[in-house]
Amino acid sequence: MNIAGRPTRTIWPDADGVSVGIIDQTRLPHAFATVRLETLGDAAHAIREMLVRGAPLIGATAAWGMWLAMRSDGGDSSLDRAHATLLATRPTAVNLRWALDRVRVRLAPLQPAERAAAARALAIEICEEDVALNRAIGAAGLPLFTALAARKPHGQPLNILTHCNAGWLATVDVGTATAPIYAAHDAGLPVHVWVDETRPRNQGASLTAWELLNHGVPHTVIADNAGGHLMQHGRVDVVITGTDRVTAAGDVCNKIGTYLKALAARDNGVPFYVAAPSPSIDWRIRDGLREIPIEERSASEVGRITGRLPSGGIATVDLLPPGSPAGNPAFDVTPARLVTGLITERGVCAATEPGLASLFPEHAAQARP
Amino acid sequence: MNIAGRPTRTIWPDADGVSVGIIDQTRLPHAFATVRLETLGDAAHAIREMLVRGAPLIGATAAWGMWLAMRSDGGDSSLDRAHATLLATRPTAVNLRWALDRVRVRLAPLQPAERAAAARALAIEICEEDVALNRAIGAAGLPLFTALAARKPHGQPLNILTHCNAGWLATVDVGTATAPIYAAHDAGLPVHVWVDETRPRNQGASLTAWELLNHGVPHTVIADNAGGHLMQHGRVDVVITGTDRVTAAGDVCNKIGTYLKALAARDNGVPFYVAAPSPSIDWRIRDGLREIPIEERSASEVGRITGRLPSGGIATVDLLPPGSPAGNPAFDVTPARLVTGLITERGVCAATEPGLASLFPEHAAQARP
Repeated sequence: MNIAGRPTRTIWPDADGVSVGIIDQTRLPHAFATVRLETLGDAAHAIREMLVRGAPLIGATAAWGMWLAMRSDGGDSSLDRAHATLLATRPTAVNLRWALDRVRVRLAPLQPAERAAAARALAIEICEEDVALNRAIGAAGLPLFTALAARKPHGQPLNILTHCNAGWLATVDVGTATAPIYAAHDAGLPVHVWVDETRPRNQGASLTAWELLNHGVPHTVIADNAGGHLMQHGRVDVVITGTDRVTAAGDVCNKIGTYLKALAARDNGVPFYVAAPSPSIDWRIRDGLREIPIEERSASEVGRITGRLPSGGIATVDLLPPGSPAGNPAFDVTPARLVTGLITERGVCAATEPGLASLFPEHAAQARP
Repeated sequence: MNIAGRPTRTIWPDADGVSVGIIDQTRLPHAFATVRLETLGDAAHAIREMLVRGAPLIGATAAWGMWLAMRSDGGDSSLDRAHATLLATRPTAVNLRWALDRVRVRLAPLQPAERAAAARALAIEICEEDVALNRAIGAAGLPLFTALAARKPHGQPLNILTHCNAGWLATVDVGTATAPIYAAHDAGLPVHVWVDETRPRNQGASLTAWELLNHGVPHTVIADNAGGHLMQHGRVDVVITGTDRVTAAGDVCNKIGTYLKALAARDNGVPFYVAAPSPSIDWRIRDGLREIPIEERSASEVGRITGRLPSGGIATVDLLPPGSPAGNPAFDVTPARLVTGLITERGVCAATEPGLASLFPEHAAQARP
């Protein structure tokens, strides 16, 4: 998408031919800075420390990380080590394993000397696929938004609430939850986005607001606490989020707090959609609450926050009384019963096993009994 | 309650005989500072700018503000002006009107020269009553907590989740939602409190954590997004909050985000109690969603936050991309159907019209038909 009118992606092969460029998302919205990844360790660090984040972008970065590892050493043990190192960076998003397994399956039969070139080609392929998936999600979601907008008084914008960042910054480009939003906006449908701040890391306030602002989409940042109240008063027409992992039965793991918005949507008759590209679907599991590991991140993410000083400098401040501990589960699971529909690259389906099977029969057949 | 072992209240008549002392709560938890209120304007400013906050403390501060006004001018127009000025400071909490009306009714029949002394006596009376009400709420709530704790494995603490600050800092002393917590802790019942950060003003992270820490009550600060996930995993035994206004039918207006926690509690079978001293009950209204005005506060409360720099200094930082707007509704309404019970100074009742009428027959009879 555009930054100051210039098309930009979140990850790209550097012109030097030996490194990968990324946007350092930890510095947004206060500074726009890019970073070069030159080694497997750089790629693992970028994922673990969330310079890149968002399930699809994590997968893409992992694929590029495999290339960096193969450039340095194309041997079997290097391949195994790179897979293990990258897999250990984040536990929740299934795209990470999906991308790593895909690279390993492609590289394992090759000679060590052939692996770097093959890894590079596959990383490019995974990135292009991601963009294509997201555009397809936008096309699948647009009619839903158009239908909801048709029920509104003429000229009133469609009010869309989103949580966290499942925007182009969470993917290679276009985004998942934002794909139908950008599609609607670009098609001339008036939209307004309620952007959940998304504590503790503020991906909504920092990233979603920033990308909507840059693309010219009307929006308002709100505290995570506000969404239920807005729904009670008819000020939200639809909720759309991304996901880090969807089970074969339609349970949705996503950023902590998503479940609370799904409950409020259900209580107020507001449709709750999840943009779910197929690499985010984990066909091996059904019960999201019992089977998806939830990452517990550092308490410092709750106790500290970074922002701009009046001087323009960037500062990190402590929020808690010295001595008060904090807890930081990073994701939660929204049971399938609260999800109105899953928007995939193949169309919209119910968040159920038959719903998913209708769109992805080849995977459903493989799902464990 | 105690600060560093020394019993302290949130508001007190100064020893100089002409002013009122308060804790400047906007500076907690980073600094403990007191402020002297000398005029009606000082009192109105302290309420509006939230140096004092919490429905009971707002009412008490308003009563002291009436005294300050009467000290300066005991005439009828001064009485009316003071009432109007203080009533306009915050729109949501009903205790404000309750305290102001009570003072005006007491003072109006008196000679102007008698009013200052009468106002002072009544302010003291309102403060002492508040403390007595809160102690009674603690006594009424303690058996509920004891019964819930009895179901837990031996030695496991009772996990209590609370939102915002309905602690002693929100009242004159003891607190409302915290009254049963302090009663349980002081009685030797092991408790652990999940403290919702409570964006955007962070009253949980700043105030509730600070007062629990000072009183030695085990607690963990969490993002507002986390409570639903904790309930899904059995890590919350009971939710208790305060309230800014309860309707005669049991709808509960409280800090924005309370409704989301009530939905999660219902979805997971977790009891959801509201500590409601009778001055917080508005007998004139029934439908909280339609009849309670919700204060929309400044967008800067969402876009800026204050904390401690590594140097120890205090700084306020901007969080949003320059140009992104923010919305800030300060309260929401939890429908009575989601409330397990109201804990009042006269005992616990259902959040229903008959439930409230059973404890407060004299008010119920006055409620509008």
